[in-house]
Amino acid sequence: MYPNWILQRAYLTPNRSALTFEGETWNFEQIKEISVQRAYQLSSLGIEENSRIAIIGRSRPNLIFIMYACMHLKCEMVLLNRKLAKDELAYQIQDAEVKYIICDDEDQHLLPENINILLFSTVEMSYGNPIAIDLEWSLNQTTSIMYTSGTTGFPKGVRQTVGNHQASALASILNIGLGEDDVWLCAVPLFHISGFSILIRSLLYGNEVKLYEKFDAMGAVEDISSGRVTHMSLVAVMLERILNGLEENGLMASPKFKIILAGGGPFPKDYLVRAKKINLPIAQTYGMTETSSQTATLSNEDAIRKLGSAGKPLFFNQIKIADTDKPYVEGEILIRGPHVTPGYIGQFAKKSSTIDGWLHTGDIGYLDDEGYLFVVDRRSDLIISGGENVYPAEIENVLMAHHCIREAGVCGMEDETWGQVPVAFVVLKKETTKEEILDYCLDHLAKYKVPKEIHFVEQLPRNGSNKLMRRKLKELL
Amino acid sequence: MYPNWILQRAYLTPNRSALTFEGETWNFEQIKEISVQRAYQLSSLGIEENSRIAIIGRSRPNLIFIMYACMHLKCEMVLLNRKLAKDELAYQIQDAEVKYIICDDEDQHLLPENINILLFSTVEMSYGNPIAIDLEWSLNQTTSIMYTSGTTGFPKGVRQTVGNHQASALASILNIGLGEDDVWLCAVPLFHISGFSILIRSLLYGNEVKLYEKFDAMGAVEDISSGRVTHMSLVAVMLERILNGLEENGLMASPKFKIILAGGGPFPKDYLVRAKKINLPIAQTYGMTETSSQTATLSNEDAIRKLGSAGKPLFFNQIKIADTDKPYVEGEILIRGPHVTPGYIGQFAKKSSTIDGWLHTGDIGYLDDEGYLFVVDRRSDLIISGGENVYPAEIENVLMAHHCIREAGVCGMEDETWGQVPVAFVVLKKETTKEEILDYCLDHLAKYKVPKEIHFVEQLPRNGSNKLMRRKLKELL
Repeated sequence: MYPNWILQRAYLTPNRSALTFEGETWNFEQIKEISVQRAYQLSSLGIEENSRIAIIGRSRPNLIFIMYACMHLKCEMVLLNRKLAKDELAYQIQDAEVKYIICDDEDQHLLPENINILLFSTVEMSYGNPIAIDLEWSLNQTTSIMYTSGTTGFPKGVRQTVGNHQASALASILNIGLGEDDVWLCAVPLFHISGFSILIRSLLYGNEVKLYEKFDAMGAVEDISSGRVTHMSLVAVMLERILNGLEENGLMASPKFKIILAGGGPFPKDYLVRAKKINLPIAQTYGMTETSSQTATLSNEDAIRKLGSAGKPLFFNQIKIADTDKPYVEGEILIRGPHVTPGYIGQFAKKSSTIDGWLHTGDIGYLDDEGYLFVVDRRSDLIISGGENVYPAEIENVLMAHHCIREAGVCGMEDETWGQVPVAFVVLKKETTKEEILDYCLDHLAKYKVPKEIHFVEQLPRNGSNKLMRRKLKELL
Repeated sequence: MYPNWILQRAYLTPNRSALTFEGETWNFEQIKEISVQRAYQLSSLGIEENSRIAIIGRSRPNLIFIMYACMHLKCEMVLLNRKLAKDELAYQIQDAEVKYIICDDEDQHLLPENINILLFSTVEMSYGNPIAIDLEWSLNQTTSIMYTSGTTGFPKGVRQTVGNHQASALASILNIGLGEDDVWLCAVPLFHISGFSILIRSLLYGNEVKLYEKFDAMGAVEDISSGRVTHMSLVAVMLERILNGLEENGLMASPKFKIILAGGGPFPKDYLVRAKKINLPIAQTYGMTETSSQTATLSNEDAIRKLGSAGKPLFFNQIKIADTDKPYVEGEILIRGPHVTPGYIGQFAKKSSTIDGWLHTGDIGYLDDEGYLFVVDRRSDLIISGGENVYPAEIENVLMAHHCIREAGVCGMEDETWGQVPVAFVVLKKETTKEEILDYCLDHLAKYKVPKEIHFVEQLPRNGSNKLMRRKLKELL
């Protein structure tokens, strides 16, 4: 058994700063008091201990207090992605069989109809009858559930347990160290593992999170150059803007600034060279929802020497390439360790997440002769657009449901701003316009998944067994 | 499953310095290579995987290589205390039912006759047939076994598992942080948890250990003032000599020096005030063999404000006082957490180490209103002498086996150098001399356990149920 992170942290370092947002600061004791109060309120409103609920909200302190309250109640929290379309959210809410969605007042319009919504304001203004809060959590208790698509295009709800999060946070320190004055800038979504893991680390490490509601490049430039923060997680599109901001203002990263954890695929060499010039240390990481954040991380020292590599595994993790133990041989990347999800919920609950303890990522890669991982090709032609995972199959499924479309194929196209964007190839069965298809997509898909281009074609490239060859699509661009 | 620490560390940071001893340095790759070679040799000499062996040796690199080799073989290592008398070692060797004792060539004279000894030199010069070394360890595998006495005076072999050591090392960083350049000065015995835990931390953290064969105050003064090391574990008697050394030479601790972990009971305020003057940060800890090192630690900031306190528990641990949840009420100190031993070996194998998951320490203490632990009285009148635990009952058992002694009672006496030393009160049945008794003790007890004074008395103070009242003995001093 392990202690309830929130209570234990407040006991150990009550007066340390835990959270800063728009100039206001909460210490760990305050965070505890508010979250316990919210737990009482949620309980009085009918949220049962150990039940499954969904949460949606903007990256603001009241979202964090609600999350922590649910953790006190040992609820399984389905963290809903605010960027999704109503249809997508409806699927997740139904698949997860949640009784309630606890919803930021400002986000109510994002949700589908006919669901049980509990507004943040309702919770905050209600009377909370005190209940006993468990002092201990078990490692295999599910803390969070995040939906991610796979090869089929059907989103699966991934369980992330107390043990997964804890192992991930601890392994991360063994890699990058820990100081009492560490402050983590959080400008990535809290509903993603990149953001949520910053909260977990804060509780375990006892360090401050400086929270941004939205990414603000000049704010980050100021925080990094002044040494107000020491750590930041980001994706390529954010780094580009921070680099520009620092360079244009003739600023360097503060010597107090320790590391940028950079996710979502390898970074252009140009970024790394520019970062080096202004003393901005960058650790590129390879992680996914199923591994509760980082599996491998490339240290700043190796950034240029091992260009394109995702680094070595964190201490508790193992990486191997399927069917080989030779260096430089490509194959599916397999991952093992206490950070790997025990499995899924809903319609995929019976699907095992691992085979003999190994997570089969679907990604293709190799290890070099020093054991550095290189990711060559993302799973199921995964498109990573501004840090969001976009699965071609998911978009194709939506396109093919359109009454004018016979066949659809989607692939990624390079994009200067977003890294990649999705592009669709469509075989029509009835006449229609590209505009009509795009409107239809906007109704059914998150905006970042809507194809940036639609091409009408006579037929799609298929292999002998009639399987769509998405890589061939790229050649049509 | 968790990775074999030695292999994983060598994979992740092969070139980092792992160990320094008398001017020679080994990196993690070298440590791995030597220890794997030793594992091959031990295996070829008949040491089986998962078997139980004992080890005795001086604090030198070859001891560490043998220990790591045994860890590769997943042996249960009984770490023998070099200061014990032959009788005491014979008891442990018999109780642990070890097939072999792997012995430093220089330590052979410490061991009893008629046991299977494998000398370090024999191992080092033998041919080692390569075998498969497991890449993974399970959390409940026993890494080390250390004997410690209890209320009865009979030493019990305490299991310390992979999970115990790992939880302890990780919780320690959550308390004191971790930097890439951390170097831990080890001048405490490797057969004690204080020293052995420094090795575990080095493997998990990837930091260097600067090993001393024996404590050398002026060496430590030099290392601390120059910033050559950043961390050190010690007991009061060592701190006194380091303080003197720094003061007499007009030296301060280097700003690079981070923390002294000080175990073995509360420290005199005078030491803390003097340490503060020369910028030497001290974290007092409360730990024991059964908890694989620290359970609670008082931060340097609180050293004077919370004088006499052992601090708060480390993150994964819980402390409570039996039969109360009120502050300032004294009672038995109970401990819970992943660092607590699963149990004992040998004749105490069936004795449970915990009740409802709580280790009953036998120590008496209280928590103040902020949750700081104060240890008021040590278990079974435990005497802590120069960092070694001395149990009165164990000495009394030896004394009462003497043919001239009818009754014996032992208590601790304050001592400027050692903190405390044992003193004996004896009721004779036949005439004998104090010298004769002391000679007898030297044959049967480690030197640090031999009473510093023997007093002949007519009777011992006993309570209504005829139980020896050791606290009353102190009044006779």
